[in-house]
Amino acid sequence: MSVTHPKGYRAAGIAAGLKTGDARDVALVVNDGPDAIAAGVFTANRVKAAPVLWSQQVLRGGIVRAVVLNSGGANACTGTQGFRDTHATAEHTAAALRAGSKPLLIGAGDVAVCSTGLIGELLPMDRLLPGVTAAVKALATDGGPAAAEAIMTTDSVAKNAVVTGDGWSVGGMAKGAGMLAPALATMLVVLTTDAVAGSEALDAALREATRLTFDRIDADGCMSTNDTVLLLANGAANVEPTQQELTAAVTAVCQDLAEQLIADAEGATKHIAIEVLGAASEADAVEVGRSVARNNLVKTALFGNDPNWGRILAAVGTTGAAFEPDRVDVAVNGVWVCRGGAAAEDRSKVDLTGRDVTILVHLHEGELSATIRTTDLSHAYVHENSAYSS
Amino acid sequence: MSVTHPKGYRAAGIAAGLKTGDARDVALVVNDGPDAIAAGVFTANRVKAAPVLWSQQVLRGGIVRAVVLNSGGANACTGTQGFRDTHATAEHTAAALRAGSKPLLIGAGDVAVCSTGLIGELLPMDRLLPGVTAAVKALATDGGPAAAEAIMTTDSVAKNAVVTGDGWSVGGMAKGAGMLAPALATMLVVLTTDAVAGSEALDAALREATRLTFDRIDADGCMSTNDTVLLLANGAANVEPTQQELTAAVTAVCQDLAEQLIADAEGATKHIAIEVLGAASEADAVEVGRSVARNNLVKTALFGNDPNWGRILAAVGTTGAAFEPDRVDVAVNGVWVCRGGAAAEDRSKVDLTGRDVTILVHLHEGELSATIRTTDLSHAYVHENSAYSS
Repeated sequence: MSVTHPKGYRAAGIAAGLKTGDARDVALVVNDGPDAIAAGVFTANRVKAAPVLWSQQVLRGGIVRAVVLNSGGANACTGTQGFRDTHATAEHTAAALRAGSKPLLIGAGDVAVCSTGLIGELLPMDRLLPGVTAAVKALATDGGPAAAEAIMTTDSVAKNAVVTGDGWSVGGMAKGAGMLAPALATMLVVLTTDAVAGSEALDAALREATRLTFDRIDADGCMSTNDTVLLLANGAANVEPTQQELTAAVTAVCQDLAEQLIADAEGATKHIAIEVLGAASEADAVEVGRSVARNNLVKTALFGNDPNWGRILAAVGTTGAAFEPDRVDVAVNGVWVCRGGAAAEDRSKVDLTGRDVTILVHLHEGELSATIRTTDLSHAYVHENSAYSS
Repeated sequence: MSVTHPKGYRAAGIAAGLKTGDARDVALVVNDGPDAIAAGVFTANRVKAAPVLWSQQVLRGGIVRAVVLNSGGANACTGTQGFRDTHATAEHTAAALRAGSKPLLIGAGDVAVCSTGLIGELLPMDRLLPGVTAAVKALATDGGPAAAEAIMTTDSVAKNAVVTGDGWSVGGMAKGAGMLAPALATMLVVLTTDAVAGSEALDAALREATRLTFDRIDADGCMSTNDTVLLLANGAANVEPTQQELTAAVTAVCQDLAEQLIADAEGATKHIAIEVLGAASEADAVEVGRSVARNNLVKTALFGNDPNWGRILAAVGTTGAAFEPDRVDVAVNGVWVCRGGAAAEDRSKVDLTGRDVTILVHLHEGELSATIRTTDLSHAYVHENSAYSS
């Protein structure tokens, strides 16, 4: 139930000593073909880690035969040496795969690289490269779960997902204890499919899927230097789904992984869904949802079990979305505490004792909607992000 | 040393029972003339409290004879009844002043209103209106400090400031334990001057002053529904300063109050100044400074005494400012931990044990600069904002 679920993929996750203890920290996903089409989405942060700059170049060619990933170091803000290290990792991976038990005729330019961990420090290449060699040796058609484990940082669980079509499937793994829109606790995602798909179809499916899933979770509004989502297709199933089928399957896997990410968000005591209804446009709905999701005063109120709809309304007021302050309704866990921009049902009726919180914001401007998922702002969030570097 | 320092002003602060205990909660500032010119700056939040909507109308006329302020209730998100209550408060204030020991010939349209406290609840008018009557009776030419006390909410100290010119002065009071750019812990500021100043000069001075001071403090990036800054001028000193002199004096009072606000920010353990240097424009410098100031991961790192420059660089990367990632330098408390976008001096040299933190971000794109002041994100911030409604 992972990246090795679709036919024609092998993966591995091994311990190379980048993380303390004997935890897995180097992952490898190999596409055995026949095709090696790929699409990628990367962080919008202008400060991009070396592996992001490298993988963007690789993706420009549209071909990816292998993805090598490491935890234990982000290789971000590491200057030209950092980029040389990423390049060396790709070269080493390609060489090891050419020399492997099932030799692949590939070059460094076919290898995408992802890293996650502390920013600003060079990777210990003397441990990483032997780790890559070991990962190549450990490659297996059921190696997906080990790979998913190897990319964990502050994650408490590994994250895998699979959706099956008619004779084909999409598999995926993710790491991230923050989020995409996104936390510095980098989000890395590798998706695989054995469907037959052209470059454009793959790219369209991935962009639509990320727009509807990862772009709508927001743990702390911070944007990582390393976020990467890759989708590989090898056609091994010999089935070509329609664009709609492909997009739906990729979106379903991404949604599954997105929910696992937000469920594992650092220090969260609440899982909050903000559903914006009656928006004039989808963009308005997303903007309003995100503004509420990022508001520290809303997030601390929910941590304190306080259905403080005034803070929600104030967050809506900072957006450029179409709305009239005296027409907005707000419900918290089913109780319409605010109607027409003023107090309505008694806030004491709101039950916030559970882990799940649903906030409805009705703008009464149109028919469009969007849901943004986030978490509360807790003592544990402050603790995790102040006590440990990342 | 307050709003009653300039000639021709009286003020009062009394307890009307809006807050628990016998704390002062209704303030009144009266301009005895001869002039009654005024300028105002209000929250940019589109969800504006009733007193903001009212005071914006009053300011359109350019004349303010009295400002009545209350803590213990924001009168925001209170619908048409909330607006009626604000109107009634202004009417009652004008009537009480017409009937006072020193009768003023004014109407409700000459009275600005400010409120601060919990959003979404109606004010207890049965206590507020008698409070206004009592405030009129208590008016005194040394009543400024009592007025400043009456507008406190989660503030731990009252905030007053004065700057003197040649024969004229500017006085001010402020409340706010968050900030302007701004926290829901509303910022209210009343400034007074006995200088002779026309409407346009006053407006220009106030806009420049707020742009350089209150707009550059940012405790939690949240924007209040009630923020108001008013500047009254009565010409009682019979001195007309130049525009430059007036702007400088108003800016100095605002800077003094802004520093008091950030020093009193809720739950802060650090006072952080982010100085952005070498920017291509002042707007770029402000955007970069604010992005760093609002980044929860930077703020939690500083709470944990961690000079995590990677998080700072990542925050810079989310802006649209002109900069090249491999040319940015970052210093934390004087140690250049990052040069050219990569690690430089040893981060262990950074001393973060004190309360004051200075972060320098050099963009190497031009000659312009700006300083944004903020605070860290601490357990106490989470506690104060989760345990108490506002």
